[in-house]
Amino acid sequence: MILVWMAALTAVLALLFAAWNAKYVLDQPRGNERMIKVAGAIQKGADAFLSRQYRTVFIFWLILTIIFYVASLYNIVPAPTPMAFTLGALLSAVAGYVGMEISVRANVRTAKAAEKGLRHALDVAFKGGSVTGMAVVGLALLGFSLMYAIYGNPVVLIGFGFGASLVSLFARVGGGIYTKGADVGADLVGKSEIGLPEDDPRNPAVIADNVGDNVGDCAGMAADLYESYVITVLAAMLLAFYTKLPIHVIELPLVIGGVAIIASILGSFVVSTDNKNRIWHALNSSLRISSVLAIVGFFLVTWYLGLLQYFPSMLLGIVVAVALAEIAGHYTNKNTVAVREIAIASKSGAGTNIIYGVANGMRATLFPIVIIVIAILGSYYSSGSVFGIAIAAMAMLSLTGIIVSIDSYGPITDNAGGIAEMSGMGKKVREITDPLDAVGNTTKAVTKGFAIGAAALAALSLFVAFANAASLTSIDILNPLVISGLFIGAMIPYVFSAIVMRAVGSAASKIVEEVRRQFKSIKGLMKGTAEPDYAKAVDITTKSAISSLAAPAVLAIGSPILVGVLLGPEALGGLLAGVIVSGLVLALMLTTSGAAWDNAKKYIEEGRFGGKGSDTHKAAVIGDTVGDPFKDTAGPGINPLIKVINMVSLLIATTIITYSLPVFLHLVAI
Amino acid sequence: MILVWMAALTAVLALLFAAWNAKYVLDQPRGNERMIKVAGAIQKGADAFLSRQYRTVFIFWLILTIIFYVASLYNIVPAPTPMAFTLGALLSAVAGYVGMEISVRANVRTAKAAEKGLRHALDVAFKGGSVTGMAVVGLALLGFSLMYAIYGNPVVLIGFGFGASLVSLFARVGGGIYTKGADVGADLVGKSEIGLPEDDPRNPAVIADNVGDNVGDCAGMAADLYESYVITVLAAMLLAFYTKLPIHVIELPLVIGGVAIIASILGSFVVSTDNKNRIWHALNSSLRISSVLAIVGFFLVTWYLGLLQYFPSMLLGIVVAVALAEIAGHYTNKNTVAVREIAIASKSGAGTNIIYGVANGMRATLFPIVIIVIAILGSYYSSGSVFGIAIAAMAMLSLTGIIVSIDSYGPITDNAGGIAEMSGMGKKVREITDPLDAVGNTTKAVTKGFAIGAAALAALSLFVAFANAASLTSIDILNPLVISGLFIGAMIPYVFSAIVMRAVGSAASKIVEEVRRQFKSIKGLMKGTAEPDYAKAVDITTKSAISSLAAPAVLAIGSPILVGVLLGPEALGGLLAGVIVSGLVLALMLTTSGAAWDNAKKYIEEGRFGGKGSDTHKAAVIGDTVGDPFKDTAGPGINPLIKVINMVSLLIATTIITYSLPVFLHLVAI
Repeated sequence: MILVWMAALTAVLALLFAAWNAKYVLDQPRGNERMIKVAGAIQKGADAFLSRQYRTVFIFWLILTIIFYVASLYNIVPAPTPMAFTLGALLSAVAGYVGMEISVRANVRTAKAAEKGLRHALDVAFKGGSVTGMAVVGLALLGFSLMYAIYGNPVVLIGFGFGASLVSLFARVGGGIYTKGADVGADLVGKSEIGLPEDDPRNPAVIADNVGDNVGDCAGMAADLYESYVITVLAAMLLAFYTKLPIHVIELPLVIGGVAIIASILGSFVVSTDNKNRIWHALNSSLRISSVLAIVGFFLVTWYLGLLQYFPSMLLGIVVAVALAEIAGHYTNKNTVAVREIAIASKSGAGTNIIYGVANGMRATLFPIVIIVIAILGSYYSSGSVFGIAIAAMAMLSLTGIIVSIDSYGPITDNAGGIAEMSGMGKKVREITDPLDAVGNTTKAVTKGFAIGAAALAALSLFVAFANAASLTSIDILNPLVISGLFIGAMIPYVFSAIVMRAVGSAASKIVEEVRRQFKSIKGLMKGTAEPDYAKAVDITTKSAISSLAAPAVLAIGSPILVGVLLGPEALGGLLAGVIVSGLVLALMLTTSGAAWDNAKKYIEEGRFGGKGSDTHKAAVIGDTVGDPFKDTAGPGINPLIKVINMVSLLIATTIITYSLPVFLHLVAI
Repeated sequence: MILVWMAALTAVLALLFAAWNAKYVLDQPRGNERMIKVAGAIQKGADAFLSRQYRTVFIFWLILTIIFYVASLYNIVPAPTPMAFTLGALLSAVAGYVGMEISVRANVRTAKAAEKGLRHALDVAFKGGSVTGMAVVGLALLGFSLMYAIYGNPVVLIGFGFGASLVSLFARVGGGIYTKGADVGADLVGKSEIGLPEDDPRNPAVIADNVGDNVGDCAGMAADLYESYVITVLAAMLLAFYTKLPIHVIELPLVIGGVAIIASILGSFVVSTDNKNRIWHALNSSLRISSVLAIVGFFLVTWYLGLLQYFPSMLLGIVVAVALAEIAGHYTNKNTVAVREIAIASKSGAGTNIIYGVANGMRATLFPIVIIVIAILGSYYSSGSVFGIAIAAMAMLSLTGIIVSIDSYGPITDNAGGIAEMSGMGKKVREITDPLDAVGNTTKAVTKGFAIGAAALAALSLFVAFANAASLTSIDILNPLVISGLFIGAMIPYVFSAIVMRAVGSAASKIVEEVRRQFKSIKGLMKGTAEPDYAKAVDITTKSAISSLAAPAVLAIGSPILVGVLLGPEALGGLLAGVIVSGLVLALMLTTSGAAWDNAKKYIEEGRFGGKGSDTHKAAVIGDTVGDPFKDTAGPGINPLIKVINMVSLLIATTIITYSLPVFLHLVAI
């Protein structure tokens, strides 16, 4: 139990570090009145979104808590499940809330700091981001350690994981629909129809667009990785518990988390530069140093605990994290062959731009899969058990703190640029915020690669835990029930993507109508003598995004229950495997295509092939529009989808082995 | 053995019927000199493509035959394998060759017949199509029956199936790259750049485009379904043989084929109408009547043979065939909600057109998967064994004759329209050929739905046969090797699609250059006083398509060998399951999106939302361009991909259980 308390202590350390960074950010000057006003509007919009989202989550939470409470009365789930579920969800909501509140305050302070130079702006933005990063891992590890310390049994914590999943699904998908609905809507009507530049204060949807960066890229990503982190710890501990490994092995995942927190805190101190070409290098150094320190820490700990057989798994986990980030860069960074090819294809029109972009996303699935397969097999055979695979996943996820710090830096600088533009801060400030923002695109792509791989490995660990919970010693694909489940599972990510992409389209078209209405009814808006009604646009996007959440949530929660009850536990096992493998490749394809289109457009905007305004550029803009829901809604939304489906299955595992149609009909497998 | 001879007899009947229809078509008048000249150019282009393609196939055939010969000397494969392989490939090539030779002769005769009215034109076009349809099933069933009669053992026929697979891969993928390279290239430069209408004789790529219809939609589809047919018979017979079922059960698949041939011949007599709004109805009636007759025949035969337990499986197979066709129509037909929605989305630009089109393709995966799962489980539990699933697949595939007849009608009418346009036959003829051609789009979508489902079920049967051949009694997804295989399998269709879509892009850009060159160098071309060099454009497309074939072929043949040798038979089993489920959903998505984009464009061209030339139309044209390689190259190319991978695995099954890395290292599954 001493290991658990030590893990809890490092979690407290992470929270203190987050608080220290938060205080630093809040102590910075906010700039002039105009800046404060713009930032205030973004802040209000973000709050409005979060409060409405949390209200929707509250309803689901209430229903599910009652179900868990009743189920616990009949001993279907352990008695503390409603409480664990509530805590898991609550801490995720708190992490998202805190992260976003700091993020929407760091943006204006970053813009102000840019007046003093790059080093200051980078400092404020990164410290703001690391509040989210450290809050995520701190709250996750603290909550989990304490609950485990109290009950001494990871089975009780399945509810905790499901709480994380619930919030993640809503935050990631709702945020994803919001951010791209606002973005596509603002672009369609503002840029294309009326001819306003990006971030022009006359565009009524411009604040909604900036809010979107925070709710999607910051709060959504944070909840996603919080969930992956929690369920990876959960799955690893469950596996060790089910296979009756010694106590200190069961607690090993918590130790991994603790070690990596210290490594991440140390690594975050190196982010500093004056050179605008070295920003990515500065951020990346923190990841590299954290990784190396974590590896050293893992070695010392496993050596001390006499568990060196798990060290290769941990090493592989870190390698996967770094490799996925590198590969994502290779297919999406602005100066790569892949992106240049898409830019060249744009010369013959939008059609070829799209064809090459999709093809680029498709081929970008190869190396991540190879890396993941190497990690699965390497960690399995080096450790001698599937627990090794879970340890590799945990090692990868243990870097969540530093990864989210780097990622959350993105929306802060993106907003800072927007605030500078809208409050007329002048060219000098933009020259600082623009390169900061451009690196934000790279960090986004890198984090997405990490988040997808993390979700897949986390879900894979859950999948094995599910099999243990359902007492399945094998899940045989030759069994027609299993292959049926596999077919259904492979299809679900497609249907899910269709639902959320249509939701983006619907939100965007509502924004378009509203912007057109404002330009018609508000006199002097075009000339800049009257102000648009930003709040109205924010409200419409919020309502549209939140009301679109029911369908994907029902799909994610309902499909495993339906298949489990109708086709039994083995079919459900097939479904889980199907959804993991199909979801992983589809998500990789969607996010890679989207990021590459975005950068191909930027590549042309730098003056190549006719530059801005040319036909080639117009074709690239179309690719970018298509890429928006690919990379920021459907692609990342698949992460919580596959995790939620696996969580629900784990929850119902013991029930469906007794109550399901095949059992009832005495249908036997081959 | 009497059953086998009866099946062979019906196969001969199919060939005689094909010959009779061929004679009828060739006896029709060819029209004036100008028509004959245009048709001659298409014919020459198609011949040039086929001869070059068969030369490439010949090289692969030679290498593989030598390998099989050597392998047979060491008893790794049965002695007749090289011969069976050769025959399987040869008959496929003959079916494709005959079908295409008639198709490129029926086109001009259909145009000529259109002068006499709709009934005559439909008659010539459908009879031309049924030559291909009947040749495909006749040659497949005849070759298979005779080989089986000689050797009395289906194991010997694995080579025959692989021969079919080899030709199919090349014909489908090569044809797909050719047809869309020419189409996209001709459109990009002809329509968009120079402003020529469709099928304008001044466009140097117009003949290549017409050749593409034949080599892609006719020869490619024929080879694809020939392969599905052959390997479904093979897999069903192997399963019965491995599980030691009685002789008349082993021969049941051949009987199913024979019964359906008679039903298809009878069904094909009802295709006739004078009403241009009833063309699809007339074609569809033949499918429905054939289906009903086949069901009646299946009932009588199973009742007579005392095998009624397999009748429900056969019924389910036919239901799947009809249901997949209906579902494909629901998401792609011109007057459906789905297509109208895409047309409406085009109003806000190409970006939203693409987003809604992709989303439409993605959600269109739901019902086909549900239907296939019902068929798998229904046929398994009603028959009591996996052999029932293979029988359902066989019943579905037994309709190949009538399906290919309906499908091959499409390129003939498409070409007829082109010939009418290019030889200036006047408006009255176009008024007949246009509605005939429009129905061709529906038949294409329907056949594609059928072909994808058929490929999935055929591959599934092969997969089970593979497990038997490799003596695997279970393939456990909880085994890390199997899950690794599953990941790799799910990724392969994506990488494959990327390769072939890029090949289309590359072929198209070569066409664009050539057309530009001709307009620059040939004086009077634009005014119509000089003739373009059609042959040169055909030659360039042919070379480009054929040279792109090596990479997908190596992927399809190499990946199962690599995984089998490195990771062993269980991982290979995982790979097969992964490639089947992931390939099925991806192919469904790609073909549905493409067909719906095409029809959304046509919907607008009928005068809606501004009609031709409007911005909405331009957006829809971009969607159609993207859809071309989706629906005619990558989507259908996945069919042979999943079958070839399964065939190769079946071939190497017995070898890799002895010679593979995991066996060598004594790595044991969980």
